Amino acid sequence: MAKMKAVVKTKPAAGAEYIDVERPKIAADQVLVKVRATSICGTDVHIYKWDPWSQGRIGEKRLPQTLGHEVAGEVVEVGANVKTVKVGDYISAETHIPCKSCIQCLTGQEHICANLSILGVDCNGAFAEYFAVPESVCWINDPAIPPEFATVQEPLGNATYTVLGEDNNVAGKTMAIIGDGPIALLAVGVARAVGVTKIFLIGKYDFNMDIAKRMGADFLLYANKDDVDRISFVKDNTYGFGADIVLDMAGSPQALDEGFKMLRKGGRFSAFGVAAESPTLVDYNNGIVFKGAQVHGINGRLMYDTWFRVRNLLASGRLDISPVISHMFLLSDFEKGFNEMTTRPRKSAKVVLFPDEKEFAEAKKRRGIK
Amino acid sequence: MAKMKAVVKTKPAAGAEYIDVERPKIAADQVLVKVRATSICGTDVHIYKWDPWSQGRIGEKRLPQTLGHEVAGEVVEVGANVKTVKVGDYISAETHIPCKSCIQCLTGQEHICANLSILGVDCNGAFAEYFAVPESVCWINDPAIPPEFATVQEPLGNATYTVLGEDNNVAGKTMAIIGDGPIALLAVGVARAVGVTKIFLIGKYDFNMDIAKRMGADFLLYANKDDVDRISFVKDNTYGFGADIVLDMAGSPQALDEGFKMLRKGGRFSAFGVAAESPTLVDYNNGIVFKGAQVHGINGRLMYDTWFRVRNLLASGRLDISPVISHMFLLSDFEKGFNEMTTRPRKSAKVVLFPDEKEFAEAKKRRGIK
Amino acid sequence: MAKMKAVVKTKPAAGAEYIDVERPKIAADQVLVKVRATSICGTDVHIYKWDPWSQGRIGEKRLPQTLGHEVAGEVVEVGANVKTVKVGDYISAETHIPCKSCIQCLTGQEHICANLSILGVDCNGAFAEYFAVPESVCWINDPAIPPEFATVQEPLGNATYTVLGEDNNVAGKTMAIIGDGPIALLAVGVARAVGVTKIFLIGKYDFNMDIAKRMGADFLLYANKDDVDRISFVKDNTYGFGADIVLDMAGSPQALDEGFKMLRKGGRFSAFGVAAESPTLVDYNNGIVFKGAQVHGINGRLMYDTWFRVRNLLASGRLDISPVISHMFLLSDFEKGFNEMTTRPRKSAKVVLFPDEKEFAEAKKRRGIK
Amino acid sequence: MAKMKAVVKTKPAAGAEYIDVERPKIAADQVLVKVRATSICGTDVHIYKWDPWSQGRIGEKRLPQTLGHEVAGEVVEVGANVKTVKVGDYISAETHIPCKSCIQCLTGQEHICANLSILGVDCNGAFAEYFAVPESVCWINDPAIPPEFATVQEPLGNATYTVLGEDNNVAGKTMAIIGDGPIALLAVGVARAVGVTKIFLIGKYDFNMDIAKRMGADFLLYANKDDVDRISFVKDNTYGFGADIVLDMAGSPQALDEGFKMLRKGGRFSAFGVAAESPTLVDYNNGIVFKGAQVHGINGRLMYDTWFRVRNLLASGRLDISPVISHMFLLSDFEKGFNEMTTRPRKSAKVVLFPDEKEFAEAKKRRGIK
Repeated sequence: MAKMKAVVKTKPAAGAEYIDVERPKIAADQVLVKVRATSICGTDVHIYKWDPWSQGRIGEKRLPQTLGHEVAGEVVEVGANVKTVKVGDYISAETHIPCKSCIQCLTGQEHICANLSILGVDCNGAFAEYFAVPESVCWINDPAIPPEFATVQEPLGNATYTVLGEDNNVAGKTMAIIGDGPIALLAVGVARAVGVTKIFLIGKYDFNMDIAKRMGADFLLYANKDDVDRISFVKDNTYGFGADIVLDMAGSPQALDEGFKMLRKGGRFSAFGVAAESPTLVDYNNGIVFKGAQVHGINGRLMYDTWFRVRNLLASGRLDISPVISHMFLLSDFEKGFNEMTTRPRKSAKVVLFPDEKEFAEAKKRRGIK
Repeated sequence: MAKMKAVVKTKPAAGAEYIDVERPKIAADQVLVKVRATSICGTDVHIYKWDPWSQGRIGEKRLPQTLGHEVAGEVVEVGANVKTVKVGDYISAETHIPCKSCIQCLTGQEHICANLSILGVDCNGAFAEYFAVPESVCWINDPAIPPEFATVQEPLGNATYTVLGEDNNVAGKTMAIIGDGPIALLAVGVARAVGVTKIFLIGKYDFNMDIAKRMGADFLLYANKDDVDRISFVKDNTYGFGADIVLDMAGSPQALDEGFKMLRKGGRFSAFGVAAESPTLVDYNNGIVFKGAQVHGINGRLMYDTWFRVRNLLASGRLDISPVISHMFLLSDFEKGFNEMTTRPRKSAKVVLFPDEKEFAEAKKRRGIK
Repeated sequence: MAKMKAVVKTKPAAGAEYIDVERPKIAADQVLVKVRATSICGTDVHIYKWDPWSQGRIGEKRLPQTLGHEVAGEVVEVGANVKTVKVGDYISAETHIPCKSCIQCLTGQEHICANLSILGVDCNGAFAEYFAVPESVCWINDPAIPPEFATVQEPLGNATYTVLGEDNNVAGKTMAIIGDGPIALLAVGVARAVGVTKIFLIGKYDFNMDIAKRMGADFLLYANKDDVDRISFVKDNTYGFGADIVLDMAGSPQALDEGFKMLRKGGRFSAFGVAAESPTLVDYNNGIVFKGAQVHGINGRLMYDTWFRVRNLLASGRLDISPVISHMFLLSDFEKGFNEMTTRPRKSAKVVLFPDEKEFAEAKKRRGIK
Repeated sequence: MAKMKAVVKTKPAAGAEYIDVERPKIAADQVLVKVRATSICGTDVHIYKWDPWSQGRIGEKRLPQTLGHEVAGEVVEVGANVKTVKVGDYISAETHIPCKSCIQCLTGQEHICANLSILGVDCNGAFAEYFAVPESVCWINDPAIPPEFATVQEPLGNATYTVLGEDNNVAGKTMAIIGDGPIALLAVGVARAVGVTKIFLIGKYDFNMDIAKRMGADFLLYANKDDVDRISFVKDNTYGFGADIVLDMAGSPQALDEGFKMLRKGGRFSAFGVAAESPTLVDYNNGIVFKGAQVHGINGRLMYDTWFRVRNLLASGRLDISPVISHMFLLSDFEKGFNEMTTRPRKSAKVVLFPDEKEFAEAKKRRGIK
């Protein structure tokens, strides 16, 4: 039986192990992918920490389980029923595996399928040399996109969908982005690339604020300093109206409070951040009803409208996400990656891992890192 | 100086008086309307009661002030600068007077103008024989619509905009309407007329539930009884998915809680009801973010897209709002109307008032009332 | 080897034969359907006549081939890989079989897949006792819809998509429908059900005009008579503006010419009819550019947004298509059906065929036919 | 009576004169603007040449008439009824003067008003030291935009509306722009600024193709050379699908033929170019119906949604239109401007004129021209 290295949650406690496990056997509707690059998502951090959410969602009984779901790799084997993907294809994967039979799946909303299962959460993931994935969520990459960028397409898809919302109405508009995590930083880059003409980024950490600036933010506002009245600042810089669009990518009570206040009447509020407290206090009357606001709940990415846009933005060079890739490691050094992700104050954005030394070396060369 | 009868808030206390006042003098951009029918809105009830909102919004210093803003009448005089309305026109009035220079006014959202003033709130209203109104909010009625229906076009516009939302995506969809006030009852009729294929009405009062049934509701659920699990009921009757669209027209904590729960993933929630408590507790994560919900804050009516639709629905006979017109009185009997509006349990829906006895007699004849 | 009856094009000439053929063997991703009702489409008439289009599209080499694609039936066997359909399900079938890998398929436009194959055109069809169909195009029917209606859902889907267009913006609007074939007549019913407030039907044949009236058309205009100036008539009945929406379901030069002329500025033109002459002369400047028209090319139905709406409209009873079902026959009497479809002046709308005598008897009973 | 210089069509023949005329007297709803910069539109060229269109539209009886409608200037006087503009405001003007009472004006489509009158066509224009303009079409400029750019906002609005269409669905999409006139060149810049990821420009003239490249076109294809199969080229560079969006800004039979062919199935075709031949031959079946194309007729600019976007794009520096401003002259040298506009092969794009020597000197300084 072929073996491979993988980062595995072996027991119901914090941490993970880099161990030898069996190479996955694929089902008839799956493909086997040799992983070229994989990256760490906040969800992986939850599972790594084995916090209450992951204890409830995954549970002790399903362990051991391989972590990870952001990925780029090469197809090395295809199941008997696979039709649209072939050996040699360079792919990434959509994380949301849809049922294909609920009303959402049948009307263009597969990303919020009623019976969704999630790669790396409900099954083994991609922090490994090989990864089994259903054909239905394979995304064939443009060869112009290097693996360290291709693996980030999934969270970049979150960012892109949050920026564009359901209406794509962003060109020549003003936007406030609340949060400075990796997806917020990617959102700044997307907003810049798609013609948002004023981008306000409200964040907390100098390291990430600097990345936001390099990604194209016009104004940086600190959420944790009182030097500036953030709501007045946004209004003063939007002819007094407030931002046309507000993206919440933080989920804190302060973000929800200020976000709805800095939104102009009739504007759009993209609700991506998971609220820190639930149920949540919002100024429903003034923030939504009287304001005539359009609130778009954002979960995942459009399958596959968002993926096409992401591919085109990256492959064309219109969007350069280099500043967001703050760290790269060998997969065996995954603990360094998780350390970077959890250190506060933040000193990291996106962390990419490489199972293969040669891939890692090439990526460092492309990025000008020794 | 010509005199007229009007229902006037004369002092800062509950109630109003039916007295002789001066007939309004119109400004250069206004028209004078001889009122044929007028109707009582919830806002009028607030002012009548002189509740804290009206004390703050109107205030003692502006009294005396004539109540009312829902109206149908005939233009008897036009100001020097008026171009699009002429003497003899049969009109109603949009209540929201826009500034014409803010970003909302300049991009098709005049109904949520940054500097909105409101007929009958920020100036004298329509519970009178004559009424002065700016040309910019005059709406020329179709002669096929009788005055007792034409005066209701303004709240019917609320109902229509709430049903259609910003996307007009209602044909062949399922809808839950929470609330049984007059606008909710009108919404049932609109939903039926525009092809909503299952209409759930969640209300409280037998009198209004009966009207809802006559307006076309498919299922009546009591909000104040525990005979049925309302959320399960809606799901069980929508193939397990939940309603495609939920309209909140109640604003109670229960309405917001249940409303988001009975909405299907990816559905639309029209937020029309003013929340009873502010700031408001909502299940933001499950109700909006994870659900991928589209929440449309609804304030007023689209100027004048909604008005065209309302006119067409009424003039074509596709929509019959007779069941909602529960009471008609002479204007001098306005106190009977307010009594009907405030009695609980509810025994009324829409109350129409007529300044003129002949108009009243004709309306009764049309409606088959002696 | 099990045998069955089927209507088969056996040789490259006009006509078809009702003969014994082998019951289809299903592939792993197909299901076998026992046909309860099937109906005749214009495409079947083309193939029946063996006109130049069908000679080119199907060709002599593929014969013999069973005709038909509109269908309702019961699943009696499922292939090894089928997951979402089971034996006993009552289904109809989408005619467009998508490739699932082109940009259209991956972005919610499967109905115009780049590599579309069509049931009953590119493979054996449904004019038979049994019918093999890919799981991917099975549509599970609501049991409230009888087979003689369920088989018509496919063309009803054309009608519904053409009425709703890409924007669903129909409530309280005016609409001119050009054509009086079965899909135009269904479109009248849909328009009525979804709140179009004035419906102009421009047709030719008394028999069909009468059906249009029963389906809810407000005005009937003859395309082949000069008693009325059709363009002026539409404008005179739309406050002088022209129809908000025009559906071309005829494709004649006259339809395209008059259709764009009776459309109001900024209106929507649904282009469903296949133009009789190609390339086609249109008044591009006045009809599209200066008019600011939105032209929506309509091909097929949205998969499966339209199907949900169709199901809901029929199952709720909001839409009654009885008037359009002009004839019903046993499948063995298929020639009577084709005769009805091709007689001019038209004396038919939709013709439904039943392989089974008992089903036929029950359908006649439901429809009140002896 | 105050006099001023103006470029006036004095007689029904080709040409115009730079003469002294009376300074305009404003009506109560107009403002008087001191012109800082004005620019030449194709419409001005038609009037200058006194071609059949301008003979019919303007006619001999209305002469003398001042030309021009693209403008930036300072308000020096306001009429008695003017409320939203004041002396000292730096403005440009929307060219389409709407009636404010037709269905288009009342539903957000003022730009295609049923009773449109046009600045500089139906009344005196802006090629003068002073210009009278209705308050209703004044647009207050951002002071960050210099007059030589601000005057171009009107055609830039055409370009922006054509690029964005009615759906704003451009981010991460591919686009073919047919034509290389000034508006097509501006469209290239807009497309680049709003995140179109592949821009194909199909033009004819080396001078303009070079500007297109500087504005951000990815691929330049000559319409008048046979070196490349343009349709195949576009498909080969869009994964075989064709362009997501095609803008026709040429109107030639070749443009319409090739444009619909290079559009992908389900794509959007923005119809801005006025067809050279009318009625026009198009491949209606394959180009629109079977393709499921969305054709958006484009006339003018959205009032004032497009203007906000244009202002934001220019004021933010996201869009630099310098390459398109190919020539600047004193107003007295207007004939040089018209010569540049009419020379073939083209050697010009946008020509800006300055009534005032000091403004001209400052503009040259800003643009680095001696």
